[in-house]
Order: sequence, then structure tokens, then C-alpha cells
Amino acid sequence: MRIGFDLGGTKMLAAVLDDDRSVVARNKNRTEGGDNDHIFAQIVATVDGALGKAGASRGDLESVGIAVPGPIDAATGTILYTPNLGIRNFPLAERLGHELGCHIYLENDVNAGLWGEYVAGCARGRRHVVGIFPGTGIGGGLILDGHLYRGKGGAAGEIGHITVQSDGRRCGCGNHGCLETVASKTAIARDLAILAMNGQSPVLAEAGATDIRLVKSGLIKKALDAGDPGVAEVVDQAARFLGIGMAAMVNTFDPEMIVLGGGLVEKLGSRFTDIAEATMRERAMQRLVTGVEVVEAQLGDDAVVVGAADLAEAH
Amino acid sequence: MRIGFDLGGTKMLAAVLDDDRSVVARNKNRTEGGDNDHIFAQIVATVDGALGKAGASRGDLESVGIAVPGPIDAATGTILYTPNLGIRNFPLAERLGHELGCHIYLENDVNAGLWGEYVAGCARGRRHVVGIFPGTGIGGGLILDGHLYRGKGGAAGEIGHITVQSDGRRCGCGNHGCLETVASKTAIARDLAILAMNGQSPVLAEAGATDIRLVKSGLIKKALDAGDPGVAEVVDQAARFLGIGMAAMVNTFDPEMIVLGGGLVEKLGSRFTDIAEATMRERAMQRLVTGVEVVEAQLGDDAVVVGAADLAEAH
Repeated sequence: MRIGFDLGGTKMLAAVLDDDRSVVARNKNRTEGGDNDHIFAQIVATVDGALGKAGASRGDLESVGIAVPGPIDAATGTILYTPNLGIRNFPLAERLGHELGCHIYLENDVNAGLWGEYVAGCARGRRHVVGIFPGTGIGGGLILDGHLYRGKGGAAGEIGHITVQSDGRRCGCGNHGCLETVASKTAIARDLAILAMNGQSPVLAEAGATDIRLVKSGLIKKALDAGDPGVAEVVDQAARFLGIGMAAMVNTFDPEMIVLGGGLVEKLGSRFTDIAEATMRERAMQRLVTGVEVVEAQLGDDAVVVGAADLAEAH
Repeated sequence: MRIGFDLGGTKMLAAVLDDDRSVVARNKNRTEGGDNDHIFAQIVATVDGALGKAGASRGDLESVGIAVPGPIDAATGTILYTPNLGIRNFPLAERLGHELGCHIYLENDVNAGLWGEYVAGCARGRRHVVGIFPGTGIGGGLILDGHLYRGKGGAAGEIGHITVQSDGRRCGCGNHGCLETVASKTAIARDLAILAMNGQSPVLAEAGATDIRLVKSGLIKKALDAGDPGVAEVVDQAARFLGIGMAAMVNTFDPEMIVLGGGLVEKLGSRFTDIAEATMRERAMQRLVTGVEVVEAQLGDDAVVVGAADLAEAH
């Protein structure tokens, strides 16, 4: 019996998987704040809860793969830090392995999600896949020659921080004009806040969208559906910028497939991805872009737990 | 006995290598125009000439690795096309293998050059290396996890065509604001032509640099050395743009090393690469860029023949 675990900033999910990578039990808890020890206790309780729902116990566990929202040291199974959780230099694999008596493997959540789509979702059977996940930032993952590509320190795939506007806005990373500054949910929220303030979109004004923290993907969808042309303009522009980033990835990797995922893509669907794809096909080198498939991620939240569990088994 | 062959647009070079990858004989000829058959005859003559200089004959040959200035089908050893040579769909490996009676392997010249630096030059012992070669365009090569990365169709590494200015100039590839449009020798020549026309740089004016085809790397060096501040401004700007592209590659690959090469880098040296590196360090994510080495290619023209010969032996 194997568990895939998604350690998120707002919730944590433990999923018990059978040998066919089907989820046989799920246990989801809100992530509480607190120090490393408190979060550790929560993780253990969430795993135990999932085992209970599956009618199993710790002795049945072969491995736990944990997807972490931040950089890790994969070799030692240490969480280096997590911007949203406040964890720093925590040897989670060692501590949890000792507690549960089984093999523990850590992976970055974006990589785990892309790997899930690769072994059980939309990217099955491909060998060269770039994953792009626009959200608060823009996450990226790389499957090259059938392997998850990590680079020298496990940080490869920061696609959100390639420059698309050399004189563009300052990014949180320190650079200017990163893809994130023009194609993320945050970039859309920033521009929608003006529409909300100016009363150009009643839906946004009513939802208090002048506070960009309140602009979720569902609200963007609702404002789009209300037919406000200003909203469509903002969203379409972000999609076109995403397409420019996708074209750069096509020219860099000559991939077979680009997987688009994350909340924004899930909510807006082809309304968003079609524009991104059209821009990509217009701007990428024709010889490379011919035959590149652009697909939406298929497994939703399960991608991360399925991928984490699979990677734990393989490593 | 192995031969590495550099099939260039203006010259072709056959180098005979010993088992230590040392060049024991070289034969260089001007590349004449003509149809596939004429170019094929020239290749054969150049190989035979190199064998003669090494005191060897065709029977001593184990393999020939040929570096081609354009896209190839590596599996079949076919040159798909070469912008500068006019070759199209030519099954060179099969024809040459039949003629010489040995194993023939084709590789793109940028990949061959980077591989040469990897097996015998500045990138020895690294596993994650990005090569960037600014010239007429900007070539790119990728060594990932110790392997040359080719992507689905062998075209990976078109780093010159990532977008750094989303509303920038039209590029030859059809895209706008590609790295090539701001950081190549051609981009520098374009801006220097104005200085030549306006009489702002006597060195450039005298060399006829209003014709951008006459702006070679050596002339750029000469104009820089003459101390014209306008020339320095143009060159430094290109170096900064190159650094923006390098930062994107750092964020995408988390590499150990970036190799800079090509005529422009050879002529301008650290005058050019230091500015590019400083910009890269300022704009890449700190966690990734720490520990990235930026080095100049070491082997000059030999990189391509050494790399091509080595790849032929391995494939």
C-alpha cells in the first residue's frame, strides 16, 4: 500500500493508492499554521486518517511520496523552505520514515503533479513534456527523454521567471518582465482590480475585487461570463503572454506536448488555452511547433498525489 | 582512426583524431556552391586529403562524424536542409558510408561544438550545461544529465528564438523580439550601421559598415578598441540582452555551467561576456544562479570536429 501526500499551504491531502494507481481512500485536512513540529504532527495524523479510511495500518505501508510547495533537497528528503508554510530546513523524510517505518520521498509539488499526468493522465506515453501551471505564480515542470528533469539543485523548470518583457514590471524574484508578471492569475487580478475600482465590471466590484487577494479563478470566470469586454481583454492578453512563454519552451525543448494546468486553466478551460495555443503556434518556429500537442491537465488534484506516490516507489 | 568533419557554409574541415581526441591531421577547403552531388564530391575529397596528411587510407577509418549547419534527421543521417549551402533532403550518411566503407554519423554543428567542449574542453566533468553561441544568429545546445538533449525532432536548443521583448522587432523566424534580434552579431551590426552612416565612428565608416554584411566580429573589436563610446554602448546593450537570455536559461534548467562561444565571444572576450554574466546574475533567481559557472569555449574551431567525431563513435 502506497500513499501520495499533497502538503499544501491551505490544505493537506493523503491519498491511499492501489497497484493500479487508483485512489482507494482520501483524507483531507486544513493546514494549520505553527512550527515544524506542529505541521509534522498534522502530517502524521492525516496519513493515519487515510490509512484508517482504507481499513489499513502503518504496517501495510510501503512508501509515502510527499509533494512540497517549495524547494527541497531530494537526496536527503529535506524541505529547504516553503513560502506559504514557514517551514525551514526540515528533514521530513527522515523524521516521517522513523515515525511510520516506511520509505519516504519528497518532491516539489509542480514536478509531482506533472509526473502524475505523465504516468496516469494526459501525458501518458510521451517522452518530452513541458508542464506550465499558471496560478498565483507560474509553476513549470519538465519531462525530458522520459525522466523528470531537475537540474543541478532540483530547481529546474522555473518557467514563470523567463523574461518576456526586458523592460517589464519588477517581479517578486527580482527580475523584470518575467512571464509571471503578465500571464499569472496575479497578473490578471492586478488588471481586474482597476476595472473593479472604476466600476467597469459590476461583477468584480460586487465581489470586492479591488483587493487582488479576493480575485480567485472562479470569480474571473464569473466576470467573463457576465460579458464585460474589459474583463475579456485582460484575460485574453494574459493568455497571449502565456502563449509567448509556451513558444519559448517549444523553441528550447522541441517537446511533444505542453500540459497546461492549475486553477486558472481548470476554471477557464479552452476559453483561455485556445488563445494561448494560437499565440504559441504563431510565434514558435514552425519546424518545431508542428506536432506539438497542447492539452489540459486531466487528473485535477489527484495528479499531485498520484505523481508523488509513483516517484516514491521509483526512488 | 576517426574523422570529425565540419561542413560549414564557407569552408569545410576534416580532422583526423587519435584515441586521445588529439587532432593528428587537418584538411581544410573552401566550400564551393553547387548541387548535392558536387558538395558530396568535395566532402569526399576533403576526407581523402585529411587521410593523406595523416599517412592513412580509407581502410583505417572507423567512423566519420559530420557536423551540419542546419537541421538533420539523426536517425537516418539525412540533411534536411542547410540555409547557407542549399542542400535539401540529402541522405549523406548512407551515401558517404557506402563511399568510405565506415560508420557515418550526422549532428547539428552547434550540438557537435558543445559536445566537443563537454568531452575535451571547458565543460569536462559537468552534467548540466547550456551552450550559447551568438553569431549571425544565436545557436544553442543543451547537455542535460550528461546527455545531449535533442527533443522530439532533434531541434531542441533554439535559444536564439526565445522572446525577450514581446513587442520587439520581427525576427527571421516569424516571431517578434527573439533574443537573436537584440543580442546577435547581426543585431550589433544593424545598430553599428547607423553609427557608420552618421560618421559617429570613423573606424566603422572607413570599413564600409553601413553594409551590415561587412560587420565581422574583428571589425567590432577594432571599433571598440578605437574608443568610440557609441560603439561601446551598442555592444554593451547586446551583452546585457544576452545576459537576460542566459538568466532565462538558468531559471529553466538550473544548470551548472553556461558556455559562451562563437566568433563574437572569441574576438571580444571578457569585454563582452563579463557584462552578459553580470546581467545574468542580477536577473536570474538567486537560488539557481549561485554556483552557475559562465565560461568561454576553449577549443575554438576544433570543438566541432572533436565533438562530431566523439558522437560518431558513441552512436
